[in-house]
Formats: sequence, C-alpha cells, structure tokens
Amino acid sequence: MKKIINKPEDYLKEMLEGIYIAHSDQVTCVNNDLQCYVTKTKKEGKVGIATGGGSGHLPLFLGYVGDGMLDGCSVGDVFQSPSADQMLAITKEIDSGAGVLYIYGNYNGDIFNFDMASEMADFEEGIRVETVLGADDVASAGPSEPGEKSTRRGVAGIFFVYKCAGAAADQMLDLDNVKRIAQKAADNVRTMGVALTPCIVPRVGKAGFSIGEDEMEIGMGIHGESGIRRGKIEPADQIVDEMLTQIIEDLPYNKNDEVAVLVNGLGATPLDEQYIVVRRINQKLETAGITAVKYYVGEYATALEMAGFSISLLKLDDELKELIKHPVNTPFFKQ
Amino acid sequence: MKKIINKPEDYLKEMLEGIYIAHSDQVTCVNNDLQCYVTKTKKEGKVGIATGGGSGHLPLFLGYVGDGMLDGCSVGDVFQSPSADQMLAITKEIDSGAGVLYIYGNYNGDIFNFDMASEMADFEEGIRVETVLGADDVASAGPSEPGEKSTRRGVAGIFFVYKCAGAAADQMLDLDNVKRIAQKAADNVRTMGVALTPCIVPRVGKAGFSIGEDEMEIGMGIHGESGIRRGKIEPADQIVDEMLTQIIEDLPYNKNDEVAVLVNGLGATPLDEQYIVVRRINQKLETAGITAVKYYVGEYATALEMAGFSISLLKLDDELKELIKHPVNTPFFKQ
Repeated sequence: MKKIINKPEDYLKEMLEGIYIAHSDQVTCVNNDLQCYVTKTKKEGKVGIATGGGSGHLPLFLGYVGDGMLDGCSVGDVFQSPSADQMLAITKEIDSGAGVLYIYGNYNGDIFNFDMASEMADFEEGIRVETVLGADDVASAGPSEPGEKSTRRGVAGIFFVYKCAGAAADQMLDLDNVKRIAQKAADNVRTMGVALTPCIVPRVGKAGFSIGEDEMEIGMGIHGESGIRRGKIEPADQIVDEMLTQIIEDLPYNKNDEVAVLVNGLGATPLDEQYIVVRRINQKLETAGITAVKYYVGEYATALEMAGFSISLLKLDDELKELIKHPVNTPFFKQ
Repeated sequence: MKKIINKPEDYLKEMLEGIYIAHSDQVTCVNNDLQCYVTKTKKEGKVGIATGGGSGHLPLFLGYVGDGMLDGCSVGDVFQSPSADQMLAITKEIDSGAGVLYIYGNYNGDIFNFDMASEMADFEEGIRVETVLGADDVASAGPSEPGEKSTRRGVAGIFFVYKCAGAAADQMLDLDNVKRIAQKAADNVRTMGVALTPCIVPRVGKAGFSIGEDEMEIGMGIHGESGIRRGKIEPADQIVDEMLTQIIEDLPYNKNDEVAVLVNGLGATPLDEQYIVVRRINQKLETAGITAVKYYVGEYATALEMAGFSISLLKLDDELKELIKHPVNTPFFKQ
C-alpha cells in the first residue's frame, strides 16, 4: 500500500486535523468532534444546509461547506457513514430558525443515519428538517416503478445540487423553496463514470477489486461498485461518446437546451486528460444542439487514488442558470 | 499506457482545445497558436508577466494566467520547452508599454528560448524584458561559488513567485519593483519533493523510471530527475520530517519567522494524504518557532499521474505577506 499515511487507524483524525489547521479562518468543528465540520460564517435567518458521507472523496463532502454553498457536514471514516448523533450535532449548530435541508447521496447507511437525525432534530429540538437525495448515476438506474425509491447512486453530480441549493439559501429563500430548487437540480443532473484503476481503503490495505492492465470499467461507482461494462481501454473520444450518449438518453433533451457540465477526475487522472474529455463533450453537445454554458473541470468527487473520470450534465432552466452563477467561497472551491 | 487520450501526437493540441473551450470567457490564444495562451483582461499601463514551460504539469504553467497573477504563457509539448517565437508572440501581446517580466523555471531549454525571445523583444520591438528564474528545489542545490548560476531546478515554489509578482504588477508597481519582488520571493522559497511512482509521457508510452512497490524517492524532480535518496516508504510524519528539516536548514530561519506553506500533490496522491502532511508540517514549524500564516494545499505543479508530493516554504517579510493576500481569479486558481 503506497500511501503517505501514518497508522491507518489514524488516517481520518490526522487528515481532519490538517484540514482544520490549513483552513482555521473559515471552518471549525462542533463539540470538539472533528467529524462535525461547520463554516464559521453564520447568516442569521438563512436556511441551513447540511451534507455528510464517508471520507475518501475530497473535496466531497466537506469541501463544499462555506459561503454561498453549505453550512455543515459530518464525515465518517473512509467510505463509511457518519453517525446520526453527528448529523444531529451539525443540524443544531447550523439551524438559525429557518430550518435545515439535508442533501446527501443515495446510500442506505447514510439514509438510515440522516433519517434518524432528522427525526431527533424534529422531536427533540423542534427543528424542521427536509431532505433531498443525490441520485444522479446513470449506470445504477435499475428498473423501478413510478414512486419507488431510486436505485441510482449519488455521485459527482451532487455538486450541482449543492451549488444551486446553496445559492438559493444564500439569497435567503425559505426552506420550501431551497428544497424545491435542490430537488429540481437533483432531478435534472445525470452522471456517468469510468474507472481505470482501483483504490485502496487505508484500513483494508489492499485494492477493492482488480482490473487488467489494459482494461477500463464504464459505470463504476466511487466506492468501486460494479459498472455496466468492462472492456479494453479505448481512445478518449470513444469513451466519452459512450458515456455521453447514455447520459443524454437518460433525460429528455431538446434542441437548444442549455447545460452546465462537470468533468470530474476520480483521483489519479491528470487534468490534461480531463480537458481532452471536455473537447469531445463540446463536439458531441454541439452536434446534439445542446449548449454548454459553463464547464467545471477538476477533482470534485474522488475515490482516493482511483484513475478515471466522470461526466455530469445539469439541464438548466432560467432559475438554475442564475443560481449556478452565484459566487462561492469555501476552502476547497471558489467561484 | 492507461490514459484517457486519443493519439499521443494529438495530446497537446486536444488538451489545449479543451482548456480554451472550458474557459473561453477568461483566456484566448495569440495568432491562432494554441500554445500561446493569454488572459482576455488587459490592464493598460500594467507590467506584463509571462511564463512558460513544458506541458504535463497542470495547473502549472498556464493555470496561473488571469486576474491578479500572470498575463501570458507559452507551453511546449509534454516536458518540452516552447519556442522563442512563441514566447516573443506572448511578449508582444501582453506588453502595454510598462515592460514585461519573465518568470520561469531553471531549465536549460527554457533559458535558451526565453533569452532569445527577450533579445528579440528588445531589439525588434523595443520592449524592455526582465527575467527572474524559479530555482527553489533544495534537492538539486549543487555546490556553487557565489555568483555562479544556480543548479537548483524550478519546481512548485514558483507558484509563490507568480503570486507575489502578480500581486505587485496588479497594484501597478513598475517593472523594477515587480522584478525586485519576484526576485525576493524566488530567493526566499524552497521546495522538496518525494515521488512514489513514475509517470508516462504520452509520446514515449512507458514510464521514465522504475521504482519498487515499497519504495519512495526523496528529492525527485517533476520530470523524474533523480533525487537524493531512495528507500523503503516510511510513515508520513517521518517523510515530512526529513523533507522539512532540509528545507529549513537551506535558508537561515529565526524564531518568530513567518512563512506561507504550499503542500503540492504531484498527480495521483489524494488530498487526504496532503492534509496528513499539513498536520505534521504545522507541528514541526511550531516546534521551530516558525508561524505558518497561510497554507495552500492541492495540485499546483504536477507531473502527470506521478504519486507523491512536495512541500514549499516561502519566508515572508511584511511586503510579501501583504502581496500573498492579494485576490486572484484565473480559471485554475482563485483566492
């Protein structure tokens, strides 16, 4: 295991200590629990937005806590959910009377704990909590009846849900409206990933799966969940075409639609390659009559040192288009 | 070679096309040459600052072109110098009468071409050009007599030279002062790196060197140049201690000195690990009585998909401390 770490069991604590040291001007923890991470900026009367999830995905999740985006985040150990108590602590800390919105990825462990925190916040603290799930992954969209719970995993596209909801809350919209906007962003974002190499969870010490020297897996999840097709690695343009076709077909698109695009590196893939991907996306979107009004490129939701990338498309209406432009200032993301 | 690319010979062109597509609001090219990259923001009467060097290091070099930092950058193919003609084209484009400062790394190919461009700018165009070299690498500091050319390679610490000089130019200081400040930053920044894995130049198609599954190399350069010690990989704190000791000993430091710190991922090393490094740096600096007033953490100067990181320390005086705070807005870096 070739990692810059000390003892694997100290990984989370030491990583978080480093983050609080580097960004002490902007963030702090609640009740001396390093895993309860909140912004130092409090805006009275603003809807609070909380997220959370396992570590190992930086800048996801805590990297989006800051001005114009989220207010708090509880993080678990690598690829593990934080506890309901930690989420409750965040909820109490960030509520300023206008209620709290939870936005997190569609994973059972997180749902269980966030739901419990939400009930405790309501019954014990009288804090109104609403929830919007990130469930943007095209590869894991199983067959489901209308009204059934989505099988889609939450992956990089949750960035856009944070971005739009965070902007709405910062503009002092009420909880109903911030939730409505978060849900609209969640409903209109789709993501597809491809992995080239596995990653190693420090406490486990070996790769979660193996993949051939010349192979890739389309649709793999950010914890190494199985994708939809494994095959020989192909030229970048061919990979992008396969991914983008499935993303576009998953939502109804019309000519002259506008989108925001996120090209997200999973960890070990150089920025250079991500821009080669941007070039092809733009060609394909132009052919489809879809306009990309904004590109985000870089590492937004990683899987430790996994090589690969994902593409997320957010279909915009006038409201989301304005919210996307809203300024953000977190230690990990600025716009 | 596991990369998201098309033909290796199209790598540079396609990567640059992607960058111009994604950031068309902020940057453009000169004379339709994609390798000549300039900001769209022109500030009349401002000293122009140009850099350049080989590709494969994103966000270095072109990522620091933008408001509050640099004005133009010429890039060569992966790990190759751009041409003198390209540097001249940048120079002519960004000069607005106040002269131009070149800031680039201490590599012979770059020096040869930048010097030629500087002479052409002077003789043919009447543009005054001054030069400051980034030569911050502690590992390559060979024995040299006073006045002799430094053998130190330019690595991630050049970020601080850009940052301070860019702020000075943005505050409309004249060329002599911008150069003085750039030189002061260059004289006071030191960097040390460690590599865990090699990287593959696309046109070459195989790793530039091999290294054991359990080995690291302290002091390795960002093109895979030999370091000062290869050995078994050690716990993060031990690696940091060895690197930081050499950095601190390379400059005279006194109790109560202040520094800005850059922890730079070389490509495949997760942000998590970089924050584990921050934690240890802070402990060691506190012990030495040195105060870190600002941390920069992330990928600032990469070597494609190399795993590893570097630490840079900029020793601050009051002037540099103010300049470090100056706002920046480039497509790749915001502050």
